[in-house]
Amino acid sequence: MKLEDLLMRESEWLKGIGPRSNIVISSRARIARNISGFPFFNWAKKADKEKLLKLAEEALLKSKFMKDTIFLKMKDTSEIDKQFLVERHLISPEHTADAAYKALIFDEKEIVSIMINEEDHLRIQVLQSGFNIMEAWRVADEIDSDLGTKLAFAFSPKWGYLTACPTNTGTALRASVMLHLPALVMTNQIGNVFSAISKLGLTMRGFYGEGTEAIGNFFQVSNQVSLGRSELDIVNQITSIVNKIIMREESTRGILLAKNKEEVTDKIWRSYGTLKSARIITSDETIKLLSAIRLGIDLGIVKNITRPLINELFILTQPAHLQKLEGKVLTATQRDYKRADIVRKKIGGK
Amino acid sequence: MKLEDLLMRESEWLKGIGPRSNIVISSRARIARNISGFPFFNWAKKADKEKLLKLAEEALLKSKFMKDTIFLKMKDTSEIDKQFLVERHLISPEHTADAAYKALIFDEKEIVSIMINEEDHLRIQVLQSGFNIMEAWRVADEIDSDLGTKLAFAFSPKWGYLTACPTNTGTALRASVMLHLPALVMTNQIGNVFSAISKLGLTMRGFYGEGTEAIGNFFQVSNQVSLGRSELDIVNQITSIVNKIIMREESTRGILLAKNKEEVTDKIWRSYGTLKSARIITSDETIKLLSAIRLGIDLGIVKNITRPLINELFILTQPAHLQKLEGKVLTATQRDYKRADIVRKKIGGK
Repeated sequence: MKLEDLLMRESEWLKGIGPRSNIVISSRARIARNISGFPFFNWAKKADKEKLLKLAEEALLKSKFMKDTIFLKMKDTSEIDKQFLVERHLISPEHTADAAYKALIFDEKEIVSIMINEEDHLRIQVLQSGFNIMEAWRVADEIDSDLGTKLAFAFSPKWGYLTACPTNTGTALRASVMLHLPALVMTNQIGNVFSAISKLGLTMRGFYGEGTEAIGNFFQVSNQVSLGRSELDIVNQITSIVNKIIMREESTRGILLAKNKEEVTDKIWRSYGTLKSARIITSDETIKLLSAIRLGIDLGIVKNITRPLINELFILTQPAHLQKLEGKVLTATQRDYKRADIVRKKIGGK
Repeated sequence: MKLEDLLMRESEWLKGIGPRSNIVISSRARIARNISGFPFFNWAKKADKEKLLKLAEEALLKSKFMKDTIFLKMKDTSEIDKQFLVERHLISPEHTADAAYKALIFDEKEIVSIMINEEDHLRIQVLQSGFNIMEAWRVADEIDSDLGTKLAFAFSPKWGYLTACPTNTGTALRASVMLHLPALVMTNQIGNVFSAISKLGLTMRGFYGEGTEAIGNFFQVSNQVSLGRSELDIVNQITSIVNKIIMREESTRGILLAKNKEEVTDKIWRSYGTLKSARIITSDETIKLLSAIRLGIDLGIVKNITRPLINELFILTQPAHLQKLEGKVLTATQRDYKRADIVRKKIGGK
């Protein structure tokens, strides 16, 4: 399989099929592991880095959980392909720099992706569609256990798993849920949610854009502390808090529909009309308008467009995706044309 | 014929068929006349006002130019119908106040409309589609000559026709051309056109909105001076100056197409998308978006919508028209819904 083939397929986590997928886009469990006897990657010498890469590659390719996978060395991956992988959430932006000795392995459904030699020797990430954080963690845990039989992970009885950055030490588990909260943003409640969450030791940040200015009303909630608690505690806490946010978003949507149906409907259809008509469009505006249409689908107002199509468009309209679709490098202006073209045609414009 | 019937028909001047109708909406000649031996209307006693109304009515109904006409006394006309007549450009806003003794006669094609007892005893208005000011004046002149054989008009060999307001004295002819100048507005040249025109003794004003802030880029050019010049001079001067404005607008459209085709196309299609989708829309926004679509038609970008439809929508979306269409009084908010509904359906939205 080539990277290009991914363009024509839907990542599993974008299918919009998981629980509460009217509000939760995806759930992600990420586990950091380091191999005992080696320095952390950023402190390691070249020979160690090379050895680490080899050890990890061998262990991963032997794992029963890594069937139908793609293995990529970052140094053999073009800049545009690296950006493409970032946009698909398969690697972190940090994994694109200093490419030597860094690698990625992921399965064709894009559920499991493992970065080798990012900040930690291994970062195991499992993505699920919808509100499925327990399942994401379960899968990550299985892979971790399996790899633990092949590699000796750095572990301290006192501190737990050791990681390059102390904030990850302990379980080294980061559980995140990506939420779409347009009603809480529209009614100015999102600030309260932010502060309530930080008091509970979690973080919430705009997925596109920064802080409360999040573009398109997408927010990622994750645990901040990974030390001194069990994995199950972390997953349960996230689950319980995200459930509360979901309930609040849902009841606010109900109030909006009861009190401001016309204004909300107008905003949704205008967004649809603009995306169906524009010939030039920036990424920020696209995300904003897609968010409104997604709300329209959730509220039963927009019926001729599916949630997976909207999810797909969030990814397809990003710079590297546009350039891979076009098969060549595009300037920012050219991307704005191409982006408008793709969205327009996908949602039924001319 | 009832006023309601007008709703279903297109006024002649909105057909978008006259010369240069890509830039000129309509041409209007307006002649003010007063009947000798009576005070001007605003100084007249009730008995005189009544006599004036009777005299004018009799003369007009006998005129060979006033076949298939509608005669309306303003006092028998509802507020909403008066507003409706203003929106159709058949009467001035001033003609709606102090309705006693005021009347209107107009032909079914809405080319000729004559106000009785506005500021002057008679105001003869002829509207033509497109750039047709000479023809508008010719028709007004014929009616004026015919009425002159039935009524003695106040005339001074020194000053010409006498009028209530001295600025109209002389020929008492006001010739106006309504222009659509989006390219001159977009390229910030409209200010220059304004000042050039006022130096030539003409006035230009935004048709919707005020001054250079004209909503929807519609401007009306008319002569300011009606004294000391012949009617033909006035018509010829307007013709020559409007021709220059048309040429400048056209060459600027050419430059826009050559240099900014994508941006202009984007703006046009976005306007179309919004009108086709919105559920709530103000009058100002509607005018602005219709203006962009009209430019799109002129530039050959929008092909599935005709100019007469756009012209019709400018009128249909105004408050009294919306209320007559709905058959009841509507609040401003209700009108915003109704307006969106009508435009959306007329241009092919759902």
